[in-house]
Amino acid sequence: MWKPDRLSDQPLYQQIADDIERRISYGEFPPGSLLPSERKLAEQLEVNRSTIILAFGELRALGIIESRSGSGTRVSKFKWGATPKHTPNWHRYAEGGSFLPNLPFLRRIREALQQDKTLIDFASGELAPDLAPIEEINILMSENNYTSYLGYDNPQGYLMLRQQLVSYLSQYRDIQTTESSILITSGSQQSLYLITQCLLSPGDAVAIEDPSYCYSLPMFQSAGLRLFRLPVDHKGVRPEEIRSLYKKHRIKMVFLNPNFQNPTGALLDAKRRIELLDVASELGLPIVEDDPFSLSAYDGSAPQPLKAIDPIGSVLYIGSFSKIAASGLRVGWMVAPHSVVDRLADARQQMDFGLSVVPQKVAAQFLSSPYFQPHLDRLRMHLLYKRDLLIEALQSELPELVRFTVPQGGLHLWCKIIPDVNDNKLLEEAIRRGVIFVPGSVYGSDSGYVRFTFARARADEIGPGIAKFAAALKAILS
Amino acid sequence: MWKPDRLSDQPLYQQIADDIERRISYGEFPPGSLLPSERKLAEQLEVNRSTIILAFGELRALGIIESRSGSGTRVSKFKWGATPKHTPNWHRYAEGGSFLPNLPFLRRIREALQQDKTLIDFASGELAPDLAPIEEINILMSENNYTSYLGYDNPQGYLMLRQQLVSYLSQYRDIQTTESSILITSGSQQSLYLITQCLLSPGDAVAIEDPSYCYSLPMFQSAGLRLFRLPVDHKGVRPEEIRSLYKKHRIKMVFLNPNFQNPTGALLDAKRRIELLDVASELGLPIVEDDPFSLSAYDGSAPQPLKAIDPIGSVLYIGSFSKIAASGLRVGWMVAPHSVVDRLADARQQMDFGLSVVPQKVAAQFLSSPYFQPHLDRLRMHLLYKRDLLIEALQSELPELVRFTVPQGGLHLWCKIIPDVNDNKLLEEAIRRGVIFVPGSVYGSDSGYVRFTFARARADEIGPGIAKFAAALKAILS
Repeated sequence: MWKPDRLSDQPLYQQIADDIERRISYGEFPPGSLLPSERKLAEQLEVNRSTIILAFGELRALGIIESRSGSGTRVSKFKWGATPKHTPNWHRYAEGGSFLPNLPFLRRIREALQQDKTLIDFASGELAPDLAPIEEINILMSENNYTSYLGYDNPQGYLMLRQQLVSYLSQYRDIQTTESSILITSGSQQSLYLITQCLLSPGDAVAIEDPSYCYSLPMFQSAGLRLFRLPVDHKGVRPEEIRSLYKKHRIKMVFLNPNFQNPTGALLDAKRRIELLDVASELGLPIVEDDPFSLSAYDGSAPQPLKAIDPIGSVLYIGSFSKIAASGLRVGWMVAPHSVVDRLADARQQMDFGLSVVPQKVAAQFLSSPYFQPHLDRLRMHLLYKRDLLIEALQSELPELVRFTVPQGGLHLWCKIIPDVNDNKLLEEAIRRGVIFVPGSVYGSDSGYVRFTFARARADEIGPGIAKFAAALKAILS
Repeated sequence: MWKPDRLSDQPLYQQIADDIERRISYGEFPPGSLLPSERKLAEQLEVNRSTIILAFGELRALGIIESRSGSGTRVSKFKWGATPKHTPNWHRYAEGGSFLPNLPFLRRIREALQQDKTLIDFASGELAPDLAPIEEINILMSENNYTSYLGYDNPQGYLMLRQQLVSYLSQYRDIQTTESSILITSGSQQSLYLITQCLLSPGDAVAIEDPSYCYSLPMFQSAGLRLFRLPVDHKGVRPEEIRSLYKKHRIKMVFLNPNFQNPTGALLDAKRRIELLDVASELGLPIVEDDPFSLSAYDGSAPQPLKAIDPIGSVLYIGSFSKIAASGLRVGWMVAPHSVVDRLADARQQMDFGLSVVPQKVAAQFLSSPYFQPHLDRLRMHLLYKRDLLIEALQSELPELVRFTVPQGGLHLWCKIIPDVNDNKLLEEAIRRGVIFVPGSVYGSDSGYVRFTFARARADEIGPGIAKFAAALKAILS
């Protein structure tokens, strides 16, 4: 991003006015469009708001922009050509479309994180940079030729990676499969997206956990699906509720995250697993099992997935590297019957023509390297350490005000705020004090829940982050 | 893919029967599902069909599979558990979904290319492996650290790549922009997908060229758009036809590929470009400009994009590395107003959480390296050579039977077959004789047109490939 040059002879406001004029003439801000607010520009360019006011004044004097009180500052329509020419109403186009935008809370969180790099981040559901196997991947990349073929690949995914995943799934997840039953995707997110777009139709009813990561994804609504809730207690969902939803609403599919569920951390009970698969096979009902966290089990005993005990093939299994290695690789996978893999691979070819082969080769090399198991051991140790730091901080800062179950794996802690609070007020106050989290309502729960991700922040930030959170909570309660 | 071991003591049919049983028990072929045909399995496993018949006989004797004449071979339902359990009807799920499958011709072409690696490939719209900058990218990858950060990246794309693209677009495409107006995508395909999903609604009318690559993409129909045709002559589309479509159908957007259009190779006339932008600005109508081929102009004079002369910002500009460097990198970009970039980046975050940073870093390094310009020079020289080989072969093999305009850039030659032919018959006969192409009807034209891609085949395959094509054509005409 361009920043004004503080050593230049030209005043800051003038540099900024010139830059805005340039961006307008390049089409970034078409005639009639809204400019960012003075406050936002000041933050972005790291200057005082008064400098922006001067720059806007300059542009206003030139007739390039127009301000009206209450409706912000816009690019003039008439400066740009004497004949009546019309820029497309891009704003209206951007507000249309059948695919829905992200939830306001999630957009607010993204914006806050972009604007203030010093925020202590309990919101981003990913590993800290130092927990990713960066060194290991660097070594593998410099030792190997990754680009022997760079044409369009099989839309099902790079064969060498699918072969490695067959061994990985057998060894680590107790799932027996073959490479032709695997589809490589751009993380679990794309697996879910392909399922909702290609296997379900508008109006179809599906069951999702409550609370659930799925609520944070308007993709379910964008696909026109009717969502029904399966409450999650500390043992996961109750299988008989699936049967009753089926009877009432003819649900077509069930989405589950049985191992260290996002956001609650719940581990689906062993007896319930068997009952659940019985119900599914009785009803001929497909289960989508999202399994990103199992290998992070802090005691090293990764829970078995449903897919490993799925006798008749009711389960579509989704896995990914995002939560156990590096989300930026964007490598995930789905294990599914042939007809499903073919259908989704075909659709994906139209959407993005498949994944780049480069990260797929990196992932395949990493899986087969001697670095993989030691990386997992180290990851688990660090996650446990960070979880404990978070728990200690919550217990010492807010002993009477919060309640939570201690997770045994995963990256998140799900926390109930005991007094009544307004999610929005708490989030804004926390951001003001330098810490950020995801309000539980994003996952479909009532107000007053918080998802803390302890994997993303540095260890030395966790205590101070919770101190700031506690101060924010007390401030809005007082 | 597993293949039987010809040196083993165990007979081939027994090995194959064991493998099929294993794949069934792993859930790849659920109870009741259809197995691949004997012919198909024989091809895949490279054995005689009689061997497959023996293997199926073995499995039938064990009650594992059932054959019924005319309806293929299925996995038994009753072998697998005594109680009535139901595997989800995956086949029906795979046939549902709001997103439409690829056209039958395209699926047939993909299947044929997978089954027979010796086919001479005039169908795949990409560069031959030896035209991609593989050596150069290998050097860059081994010299640089690519993985300094591997978390979720900005959904707009990797900043360093966006910055490099600002210089690239200015230097090579005469487009002035800033990094905040650029969205990185998984190739042009994803740019088009995001536009159809997020800026348009079901029922909206749009105009596309006729013939056009867009017809090969059921994504337009999946999004519920009404398509109207702009006929392409040797000078491209006629601007007044846009006005008349707007009056009749209130079209909301126009999709164009003005430089070496796919499939015709047409270059939009300079005078028409100005008129076209006038019409667009008069109507406030957005133009989507797909520009993958310009830098392949054989004489080195890459035609200017519409975006470079777009005075008021009517144009969304799409570019990509796929046709000028390597399709397997999956790196493309869009230049658009802020509000559009924000909207599409937000949606993309839900669909796949953005692109892997690894290929984005590779692309940024390649753009700024001293290898980029020499690579382009070499590419153009080779494409011109291959184009001439194709033209010579067509002129010597089929002088009276075909008609075409000689393209001045791009990877394709669009060819009219003068006698009446049936596209399907010609394609099947060509495949039988060892050569493959894309029938023109895939791009919306009448029967009797062929798109030959000359970039993908090796130079020494082009003459023999056209000889096979000529033999196929003469066989079905006789």
